[in-house]
Amino acid sequence: MGNSMGTIFRITTFGESHGKAIGVVIDGCPAGVMVDEQAIAAELSRRRPGQSAVTTSRKEDDTPEVLSGVLDGKSTGAPIAILIRNKDAKSEQYQGMEGLVRPGHANFSWLAKYGAFDGRGGGRASARETACRVAAGAIAKSLLSEQGIHVRAWVEQIGDVAMPAASESTGDGAHDCDPEENALRCPNRKAASAMEVAILRAKEEGDSLGGIVRFSVEGCPAGLGEPLYERMESELAKAMLCIPAAKAFGMGNGFDACAMRGSEHNDVPTGIVDGKLTAKTNHAGGVQGGITTGMPLTGTVGFKPTSTIRKEQQTIDLQGKAATFAPPADARHDPCVVSRAVAVVEAMAALVVADFLLRARCARMQLSGTQEQGPSGSGEEC
Amino acid sequence: MGNSMGTIFRITTFGESHGKAIGVVIDGCPAGVMVDEQAIAAELSRRRPGQSAVTTSRKEDDTPEVLSGVLDGKSTGAPIAILIRNKDAKSEQYQGMEGLVRPGHANFSWLAKYGAFDGRGGGRASARETACRVAAGAIAKSLLSEQGIHVRAWVEQIGDVAMPAASESTGDGAHDCDPEENALRCPNRKAASAMEVAILRAKEEGDSLGGIVRFSVEGCPAGLGEPLYERMESELAKAMLCIPAAKAFGMGNGFDACAMRGSEHNDVPTGIVDGKLTAKTNHAGGVQGGITTGMPLTGTVGFKPTSTIRKEQQTIDLQGKAATFAPPADARHDPCVVSRAVAVVEAMAALVVADFLLRARCARMQLSGTQEQGPSGSGEEC
Amino acid sequence: MGNSMGTIFRITTFGESHGKAIGVVIDGCPAGVMVDEQAIAAELSRRRPGQSAVTTSRKEDDTPEVLSGVLDGKSTGAPIAILIRNKDAKSEQYQGMEGLVRPGHANFSWLAKYGAFDGRGGGRASARETACRVAAGAIAKSLLSEQGIHVRAWVEQIGDVAMPAASESTGDGAHDCDPEENALRCPNRKAASAMEVAILRAKEEGDSLGGIVRFSVEGCPAGLGEPLYERMESELAKAMLCIPAAKAFGMGNGFDACAMRGSEHNDVPTGIVDGKLTAKTNHAGGVQGGITTGMPLTGTVGFKPTSTIRKEQQTIDLQGKAATFAPPADARHDPCVVSRAVAVVEAMAALVVADFLLRARCARMQLSGTQEQGPSGSGEEC
Amino acid sequence: MGNSMGTIFRITTFGESHGKAIGVVIDGCPAGVMVDEQAIAAELSRRRPGQSAVTTSRKEDDTPEVLSGVLDGKSTGAPIAILIRNKDAKSEQYQGMEGLVRPGHANFSWLAKYGAFDGRGGGRASARETACRVAAGAIAKSLLSEQGIHVRAWVEQIGDVAMPAASESTGDGAHDCDPEENALRCPNRKAASAMEVAILRAKEEGDSLGGIVRFSVEGCPAGLGEPLYERMESELAKAMLCIPAAKAFGMGNGFDACAMRGSEHNDVPTGIVDGKLTAKTNHAGGVQGGITTGMPLTGTVGFKPTSTIRKEQQTIDLQGKAATFAPPADARHDPCVVSRAVAVVEAMAALVVADFLLRARCARMQLSGTQEQGPSGSGEEC
Repeated sequence: MGNSMGTIFRITTFGESHGKAIGVVIDGCPAGVMVDEQAIAAELSRRRPGQSAVTTSRKEDDTPEVLSGVLDGKSTGAPIAILIRNKDAKSEQYQGMEGLVRPGHANFSWLAKYGAFDGRGGGRASARETACRVAAGAIAKSLLSEQGIHVRAWVEQIGDVAMPAASESTGDGAHDCDPEENALRCPNRKAASAMEVAILRAKEEGDSLGGIVRFSVEGCPAGLGEPLYERMESELAKAMLCIPAAKAFGMGNGFDACAMRGSEHNDVPTGIVDGKLTAKTNHAGGVQGGITTGMPLTGTVGFKPTSTIRKEQQTIDLQGKAATFAPPADARHDPCVVSRAVAVVEAMAALVVADFLLRARCARMQLSGTQEQGPSGSGEEC
Repeated sequence: MGNSMGTIFRITTFGESHGKAIGVVIDGCPAGVMVDEQAIAAELSRRRPGQSAVTTSRKEDDTPEVLSGVLDGKSTGAPIAILIRNKDAKSEQYQGMEGLVRPGHANFSWLAKYGAFDGRGGGRASARETACRVAAGAIAKSLLSEQGIHVRAWVEQIGDVAMPAASESTGDGAHDCDPEENALRCPNRKAASAMEVAILRAKEEGDSLGGIVRFSVEGCPAGLGEPLYERMESELAKAMLCIPAAKAFGMGNGFDACAMRGSEHNDVPTGIVDGKLTAKTNHAGGVQGGITTGMPLTGTVGFKPTSTIRKEQQTIDLQGKAATFAPPADARHDPCVVSRAVAVVEAMAALVVADFLLRARCARMQLSGTQEQGPSGSGEEC
Repeated sequence: MGNSMGTIFRITTFGESHGKAIGVVIDGCPAGVMVDEQAIAAELSRRRPGQSAVTTSRKEDDTPEVLSGVLDGKSTGAPIAILIRNKDAKSEQYQGMEGLVRPGHANFSWLAKYGAFDGRGGGRASARETACRVAAGAIAKSLLSEQGIHVRAWVEQIGDVAMPAASESTGDGAHDCDPEENALRCPNRKAASAMEVAILRAKEEGDSLGGIVRFSVEGCPAGLGEPLYERMESELAKAMLCIPAAKAFGMGNGFDACAMRGSEHNDVPTGIVDGKLTAKTNHAGGVQGGITTGMPLTGTVGFKPTSTIRKEQQTIDLQGKAATFAPPADARHDPCVVSRAVAVVEAMAALVVADFLLRARCARMQLSGTQEQGPSGSGEEC
Repeated sequence: MGNSMGTIFRITTFGESHGKAIGVVIDGCPAGVMVDEQAIAAELSRRRPGQSAVTTSRKEDDTPEVLSGVLDGKSTGAPIAILIRNKDAKSEQYQGMEGLVRPGHANFSWLAKYGAFDGRGGGRASARETACRVAAGAIAKSLLSEQGIHVRAWVEQIGDVAMPAASESTGDGAHDCDPEENALRCPNRKAASAMEVAILRAKEEGDSLGGIVRFSVEGCPAGLGEPLYERMESELAKAMLCIPAAKAFGMGNGFDACAMRGSEHNDVPTGIVDGKLTAKTNHAGGVQGGITTGMPLTGTVGFKPTSTIRKEQQTIDLQGKAATFAPPADARHDPCVVSRAVAVVEAMAALVVADFLLRARCARMQLSGTQEQGPSGSGEEC
């Protein structure tokens, strides 16, 4: 259990970091969606370790193999399985550390759950599994893109370096470049430079940094999301919090909304365009009552610093006795995964929105044609 | 769709604020759990409007009626249905406002979804529905309590008034009283007083305030939560973000973790007691890799200020033309729902943990008896 | 668990035969479906005991109360809850039999599962629960009827009295009247009379009879059903086998197909009308590969004789010692429930088809408009 | 959608008969179950075409590759993925038939659903997919076997040749050999011979035969199955009806129960052994009220004759015009798949029972130890 996500557009992933392969099965992708192996590979390379000096030097050459569900470049309605072989699956270097509780790691909790833990590396708990999400997310993005919906994400903070705030109306930071231009994936050049300096320092010290990623989904019709327990924001929160190292989520202004007054926070509506609401501000992040208004969906995901560091750490063994966790001198580690996580955040957002787009088709009997009661134009949206 | 929550311990709610009744069906409560109508009523009174000067004067007299699934005060394994009649279901006072997009409200987005909106009040989108969660949560709490697991929540911030920080080791604020002692449900007396002042001022101005609630689950065994997509933290995030007005969630230190270094954030393990990990700090909030370690589960939920205010607001009508939303002079409103939300946050946490407690029974073949590979004592936990 | 059915159009029922009430919550009924309390009551009266001499004399006056989800006679998209109070909930007459394994009844198996059994009557296992399905089914029928889909069922066999076979092409029996005309709900007058005689004889003897019900769904578009694990026929089989006393299911010709040759059994296609296949015969019962062809959906449900009889029976007590189960002289019993089950069979068929009708909307990206690859006209169907 | 089965022990399959590979992901297999690739391969060879003269000459050399979820021969709790490459994936021989409705096949209904159909062969609708179920079923059997539960199935009828009836008490036919001894998998030697003659005759004529398979699950504890909508018999019915060509299902005596009287059909309890009921007969097939009693679970599955035959058949093209479907002279076909389906029926039964075995752990708070209210000994069962 726990290896699937989605109700209609549903993914199930499998595989361990040091096993034969990892992979994903997408069940519920409607027929007729363009599936492009190149596009999947391109997304995977955004997540891949070893892209630049600010990530780990460990390389993963992730070649996705689409095994089923696609004919002539389009989905057929059958499950789409994508396999990624583990080419460099040598066991991890932490010899002699197997009997220890690894600080900040899952080995104790998984052992408590399953009674056994595959100690060759992160095993199933390894962040390598997120490659499967990125692959599936590439197909969700394709589906959304055909409907005019576009998903992006970028870095707003690394460690204690945050990009400068933009105007109050958006909640975004001040953008002056395409975030994909720099290795940090930060849309503010000066902040990106400062973040790089911070990461290299942490790397040198054998330590690690966390950070914040913001996502934005534009073109989303009004009416997506289910009320009460499967809200757009609650499913996004769930999706984001299941990315390894993610510890916090904010929709729209997030925690900053807590100190605002209602008269400030309420977004003032200005019009309805193609069935989508427009407003002076977007503090709500594009949702009201769990359901999209047509404003851009936006929010933030907070990542803790990765727990794998090169410093020696105090810990205990599985019998509870004090011990020292000491990584070998040559252990590779990734001082900051936040920029790589951008691709994963986009994938998760795309998977959530694609699922709701399909679910929205079941909300009312009349899907198209004249619509008398609804807001102008909204009848065609979903 | 969207009116259910949980996999094994699963609730489904129904009812509108201005209809005949609201209610909840719990399917999957195991046989043998104590179900006490008094305890349910007591929890409901903690959520109820009209408790004190700091909430709305509107009263709801919520008498829960247990219709099924209970015999001699214990659950039988059959679905437990609880009905709460709407006694004071007069239509809302906002006459003439029906054709307007209500700022910060769900009427536009729900209309876009369903093609119709029950305008007699909040309808299904009303926060009154949370009474159902509190009722179901009371039974989940009973189940958990019988296993030595206890759920609590309290207010840490109202508007811009935050309680003072406690020592670094807990992440909690500085407690000097039982939060249930004051109307604010804040465990720091001085902060509670300042919060009250802030709320009364906002009330006078016809405005509203948000705030932050922290929850804590103590006694939770190690090994709860499913890996990857149904993590303890991702299900908690989902559950909390589906409370009306909730906009943000943080597990453990939440967004504060983003600016920490790995060497700071990693909790240093100190021992294993009854199969549960102990550590010097609890930055992680009691989970590693999505699964509990046995440390207390803790996190925060951020609420925006409620969107219903007594001030006149600019808006548009459903055709997109500019209009003014003007509540009548005598409209009741709740300047701050955060203290009432404490009962809902506890309920959601209890529902999530109860579900995982049951699901954990399916994780391995050997549930009890000697366990050779696991951490000491953990074999008996779930 | 186990008290829900359906994926999109999903029902959850609750209540025991001797408790306060039974009821059902429908989550996922799209907005805009006509919901008529009279129509629900009319369906309930078809299931109701005490309709005629051939059923039990026990009366249930089932007045359904629609609590939520309906405004101005139409569904709003919110959950529809229907409550049916138990008016005549006196405990059952079998005093002194509580410690016995009741032959053909669920008390032993439920006790093994839950560790307790509500012995005041059938409890949750009572067939009274089927009233909830009939109520929900009435709404599913309304949804289907608005799409031109009609569900009917009738009795084909009672005990060893079967209605005569019709022409080979349909698989149906020889109809000469509306089955609702007679108390048996058999569309063949002569057979209906013989069945009545058989039931009255069994009643006199304190014994019970089983029988066979056939259902037919006309107007169903092609393309409903999910492949492989959630086929139209597999979901119908599941739905029918969860009616109390149902023991067998056949799609189309059912078990009779086993002795046919492929060249006989293959239905010869003759044309495509409004996207629906027509064929010389309908041995397949309207499905191919789990998905509807547009031919009428048809199949049979076999019911065992009810286990409650007035005869004395050998049994054991819960310690395994031999005992006698002896109903009191004045115990009421229903010698044959098959004619009453007709309403339940229709409800189950309607619930399954309504769910698939909604699910079919998610099968491909283009729901309407020109469709180049598909069979003529089918593009508009679902 | 539609490519998954199970709630806790859940499988998802993928792949087309003429694509690169087929495969299955099992999510929810508890940690600690023995997983043996040899055992999986052995089960696959029972389903494999080309085993004997009575099946098709087409060969599939199914080598299962376990990709994940297993360490040192035991499940780890992580998803188990099994891949089977399609070695001989040449496109089917029916050139020029692509635009026709193929009698008894899924091409029309799938086209109506998805707007496209992979015409290279059966595609996703091919019975080749059942190899995935058999592979997953082998692991479910391993889990069950470790709990003393054993699943078997055999052929009772081929075409119009049925094995002779056994004594009334079992409902089984008269066994005089191990069904695995002969190519038919019929436990009655004389019937097996007659069946073989019938199949060879049909083969010569280019026609096909159907038949009936019976399954039996022994050692199953009392208390498995969920009430009402997810009964043991309803989930078995669903599972069996999703085997290609399956058209009918009977629990226990199935349709034969319809003509019995209650006093005959009620199984007379004789004792309780290890928490399991014993009785003079097993007409109910091991369930009461949807939940197991501890008697063997047994029932029958009816298969229609396969629709692929070598005879010329009348049909229509996708525009509705009359046409002829004429397989080429050298087309391979399988005159009767019933004996091969035995392995699939066993797999489906094993998957259903394994899922319920795990689900039963959530039915009551006290899983083990003294149990006062339940039938003797049943407390330890699940």
